[in-house]
Amino acid sequence: MPKVAIVMGSTSDWPTMQKAALMLKQLGVPFEAKVVSAHRTPNLLTEFAETAADNGIDVIIAGAGGAAHLPGMIAAHTHLPVFGVPVRSSQLSGLDSLLSIVQMPKGVAVGTLAIGEAGAANAGLLAAQVIALQEPDVAAAIKAFRKQQTETVLANGQLELPE
Amino acid sequence: MPKVAIVMGSTSDWPTMQKAALMLKQLGVPFEAKVVSAHRTPNLLTEFAETAADNGIDVIIAGAGGAAHLPGMIAAHTHLPVFGVPVRSSQLSGLDSLLSIVQMPKGVAVGTLAIGEAGAANAGLLAAQVIALQEPDVAAAIKAFRKQQTETVLANGQLELPE
Amino acid sequence: MPKVAIVMGSTSDWPTMQKAALMLKQLGVPFEAKVVSAHRTPNLLTEFAETAADNGIDVIIAGAGGAAHLPGMIAAHTHLPVFGVPVRSSQLSGLDSLLSIVQMPKGVAVGTLAIGEAGAANAGLLAAQVIALQEPDVAAAIKAFRKQQTETVLANGQLELPE
Amino acid sequence: MPKVAIVMGSTSDWPTMQKAALMLKQLGVPFEAKVVSAHRTPNLLTEFAETAADNGIDVIIAGAGGAAHLPGMIAAHTHLPVFGVPVRSSQLSGLDSLLSIVQMPKGVAVGTLAIGEAGAANAGLLAAQVIALQEPDVAAAIKAFRKQQTETVLANGQLELPE
Amino acid sequence: MPKVAIVMGSTSDWPTMQKAALMLKQLGVPFEAKVVSAHRTPNLLTEFAETAADNGIDVIIAGAGGAAHLPGMIAAHTHLPVFGVPVRSSQLSGLDSLLSIVQMPKGVAVGTLAIGEAGAANAGLLAAQVIALQEPDVAAAIKAFRKQQTETVLANGQLELPE
Amino acid sequence: MPKVAIVMGSTSDWPTMQKAALMLKQLGVPFEAKVVSAHRTPNLLTEFAETAADNGIDVIIAGAGGAAHLPGMIAAHTHLPVFGVPVRSSQLSGLDSLLSIVQMPKGVAVGTLAIGEAGAANAGLLAAQVIALQEPDVAAAIKAFRKQQTETVLANGQLELPE
Amino acid sequence: MPKVAIVMGSTSDWPTMQKAALMLKQLGVPFEAKVVSAHRTPNLLTEFAETAADNGIDVIIAGAGGAAHLPGMIAAHTHLPVFGVPVRSSQLSGLDSLLSIVQMPKGVAVGTLAIGEAGAANAGLLAAQVIALQEPDVAAAIKAFRKQQTETVLANGQLELPE
Amino acid sequence: MPKVAIVMGSTSDWPTMQKAALMLKQLGVPFEAKVVSAHRTPNLLTEFAETAADNGIDVIIAGAGGAAHLPGMIAAHTHLPVFGVPVRSSQLSGLDSLLSIVQMPKGVAVGTLAIGEAGAANAGLLAAQVIALQEPDVAAAIKAFRKQQTETVLANGQLELPE
Repeated sequence: MPKVAIVMGSTSDWPTMQKAALMLKQLGVPFEAKVVSAHRTPNLLTEFAETAADNGIDVIIAGAGGAAHLPGMIAAHTHLPVFGVPVRSSQLSGLDSLLSIVQMPKGVAVGTLAIGEAGAANAGLLAAQVIALQEPDVAAAIKAFRKQQTETVLANGQLELPE
Repeated sequence: MPKVAIVMGSTSDWPTMQKAALMLKQLGVPFEAKVVSAHRTPNLLTEFAETAADNGIDVIIAGAGGAAHLPGMIAAHTHLPVFGVPVRSSQLSGLDSLLSIVQMPKGVAVGTLAIGEAGAANAGLLAAQVIALQEPDVAAAIKAFRKQQTETVLANGQLELPE
Repeated sequence: MPKVAIVMGSTSDWPTMQKAALMLKQLGVPFEAKVVSAHRTPNLLTEFAETAADNGIDVIIAGAGGAAHLPGMIAAHTHLPVFGVPVRSSQLSGLDSLLSIVQMPKGVAVGTLAIGEAGAANAGLLAAQVIALQEPDVAAAIKAFRKQQTETVLANGQLELPE
Repeated sequence: MPKVAIVMGSTSDWPTMQKAALMLKQLGVPFEAKVVSAHRTPNLLTEFAETAADNGIDVIIAGAGGAAHLPGMIAAHTHLPVFGVPVRSSQLSGLDSLLSIVQMPKGVAVGTLAIGEAGAANAGLLAAQVIALQEPDVAAAIKAFRKQQTETVLANGQLELPE
Repeated sequence: MPKVAIVMGSTSDWPTMQKAALMLKQLGVPFEAKVVSAHRTPNLLTEFAETAADNGIDVIIAGAGGAAHLPGMIAAHTHLPVFGVPVRSSQLSGLDSLLSIVQMPKGVAVGTLAIGEAGAANAGLLAAQVIALQEPDVAAAIKAFRKQQTETVLANGQLELPE
Repeated sequence: MPKVAIVMGSTSDWPTMQKAALMLKQLGVPFEAKVVSAHRTPNLLTEFAETAADNGIDVIIAGAGGAAHLPGMIAAHTHLPVFGVPVRSSQLSGLDSLLSIVQMPKGVAVGTLAIGEAGAANAGLLAAQVIALQEPDVAAAIKAFRKQQTETVLANGQLELPE
Repeated sequence: MPKVAIVMGSTSDWPTMQKAALMLKQLGVPFEAKVVSAHRTPNLLTEFAETAADNGIDVIIAGAGGAAHLPGMIAAHTHLPVFGVPVRSSQLSGLDSLLSIVQMPKGVAVGTLAIGEAGAANAGLLAAQVIALQEPDVAAAIKAFRKQQTETVLANGQLELPE
Repeated sequence: MPKVAIVMGSTSDWPTMQKAALMLKQLGVPFEAKVVSAHRTPNLLTEFAETAADNGIDVIIAGAGGAAHLPGMIAAHTHLPVFGVPVRSSQLSGLDSLLSIVQMPKGVAVGTLAIGEAGAANAGLLAAQVIALQEPDVAAAIKAFRKQQTETVLANGQLELPE
């Protein structure tokens, strides 16, 4: 089965980005995760992105915060689909991260998810949805996950005010 | 070849969303485009999204403006990958559209592109990148497109001040 | 007496939305409260909204956070008045929730209240104000509530600096 | 039949607010419209709001821009439901108007609609939805309006790229 | 000597607004402080503002948060100078308070200070600067305060890194 | 009678700031207007502000756009009340101007008006309100202006939809 | 004399960035200008930035809009000072450009100028100020430029209202 | 070797600005640091900025928060390069500080860094990059710092989910 790569700008992004890894694990999609910094290891970024397809990767998830250049620069060096996760920044709550990732110019695309952990988990889900187009087992796992999440909500009855 | 569906909340979104169609056409990916309004035709939305996979669609591109609920509600009714395009709104320049589309909760994902025409074109490109994982002809077309766009930039020499 | 329904996207919204319930209880308006998720239980949403009027409900209060699609999608499926409460989101302080709820397109309306607990309480109050048009007892309860709140403020005398 | 009052801070708001009047007219709901300025005619505001119920008014729609105090101040002087319309301001696109109207403190409520003409039309619609709870003819008119708007969207077929 | 009145929408604003009182006390300007709520005691607001000049008040400082209507509505009922203090709101950090106070329409003015405690203190200072135009003792106190604050900064020498 | 000084960062601000001059003229308050740039003529700024009181000036109105330092720097050099007008900037609609003027630290105050022409006119009005504390003629002119503006609004009757 | 390089993401940025070139020309600093796109020509970016110092360049000015990655990625590949110019974007007025450029993480720095043409001109000025530390002629030209700009402001007399 | 001056508006900015000092120390660039307040010590500001070049200073780093006028006013009084650091403000997270510093008008430039500690550290780095144009030892130290930071990232292997 093709793999998903999860990259992030710093180890401090791992607590957020690990939600993507957990989602992929839950859905049975193989993945690898590592730190690739657009600003501190630009040559590693180039090498990683240019060889990803040959290394058996089908989808790349990239998370970064602040002036978040990682997802867009990876997309500039590959033809694989890239999904970006704006990591919450300490100053502007991730609005800077979001705009830096989503506002890509015509011709190089990044599919952007929500700021923070929900976005990271959904990046894993969306990557699995892409993989599932070729892998019926993953499709089945996604349907089971979605069904269970629906049932969890439906199991709630009426909400009551505390006495 | 699987198809891409392009849906939008209103015919007034077509001038923007047609950039997605043009990109898909350029890359040789079949597509269909129609109006599905989350608020005015909610039952059509449900039916469209629930039958999309069976209708030979692999990727859905959804564009909407303002309180843009279309991409997220389609994602709620399908297991296919959904890419959202925030259409520029007349009042808040599309910031409302962007936040309404991108900030999805954990468990239902929308890959969001840039506000407006650049985002629509890139939604077409990203959908093609997903299709290309299974279709070598599309992969080749994407590489050619990207190569041409690189060469166009490289063809620029030094910029000179007007006399 | 007709009832008010309070729905919300997640049990995690209940601490906020329970302020609506408390206000309705204080004003003597019957209500029911439950979780209906636009994204995780879209079919429940449709069924709930389409049967609400027949189930003796006159006003619907819907609270959600982030890409908050619940109020607008309920409004799309009913002719009853819908009031929306933007729940404070962890990343963008509820600005995303507010814009996702309030910026509805022409033809489907949501009356939106303030972000968070004050908005939830006021959604209860506004629903009661609508019910009061037909129910004199509720009108009297609202007037009493408002009068008491005025008197509470008036009871404050001069404010003094601590010694 | 009870009436809806439409008030606004300035005659310059009438092009926007007249969308509320048109919607009410289309739905067969009687209304009156006039200028009441929170800042320039505060005593008229008080008198208008305090006598509205006795004058046969059931719902008040108030539109204003910038530091938009009109909807909230009317709500402070009446027990009728008040719906606020943020008029687009020349400097900040109506974001100031929106926040000034929607962020009311607990205890005095304004149901807020979208910025500008869509919001004004929806204020008319929402007011009619409230009136419809007592007036079957208005309920029928709303259902007909909503059905027609759905059919208008459904009448669109596939969208085609220009040759 | 004429007095300054400090009013605020709620006792919860007093910790902020008391910085205005402390500044006035330090500068020897008499003041009174009380709660006047635009939304919960609108008639008290009218009476207070219309009688302020006759009660020996020269300048009014008004603080409020969220949809902060108090400063502007007081200005609508008086010819005295009004200075507004945006109290930090729990959801939007006071940006809503700031825009609700500062964006007044032509013809009714509020001089607005910074969000929160610094703004409250400066409202006291600015009120004293107005009083000082007629009261040489206050002018002298302001000059002394400003001189001392300059000297406090000048007393800092070079800053050193900790060993 | 003491004078009001109107200063601005550039002649391009004069179309905006001239609304302050017109208001003062209408209210019979003498004024002078000139360009003083915080960034391009900092020494003129210092000299102007330090000698303003001795030159018979009681109130200073300062308008600037973008990184608008003029009002705050004038306030740093004088004990007179300073009112700031955020001039609409070409990029960020004056939000940058507003925040640069209003968010002054404790100890140096600027009373800030709305962005653009309404704010400039209100700066003239507020300056006149301060002068009026000592000048009964100005007080009378303000009352007449305010009364006329109220009557203009009251002269509007019911608004009618065009046939 | 060392040179300044001006790079930008697209020829459509040249009308803005040419203000940097004009300033450098006015101050007698040699420069070269060309298009280098972070997303469309990432390898050119790397080569350009890594060889800039050896090509006699001392300062790099980089302008870009939207998800503006050019300045930060150039800074990642060189030890020369990099100054960034946020080009006004069509959707979000350049706020996205500004945040994408300025919010760099610790360890790779971009000195950011104002959005648009003023920022471009100032990037030229700031680059010249850096060059001037080694080149007395440039220092003299800057002083002359600044003196002239001061004198232009001082040449304005009193501003008069039109008759 | 020429020195870098670090100035800030208040001792409360020192915890942030000391990151600039630490970076300069690490890179072997001499510096001095002190408090210079634009608003509370404007004459000190003028004197400091006008004599900086003669005092052996080549680059000035200025940090301030809120209505942050310090960097721009220093730039107005010197021909040396000035780098500005927006200190995180308590109310608006430093967005006010950022806009007040970066949006300078044409003709007086401030190179602005990120909000808060990362920006302060980078101001030190950028100042060193300017000094390095004349000082080979500093250039070597910067290259060593950058190389080490790259190696630190590269030393991270695959990230693993906790068991």
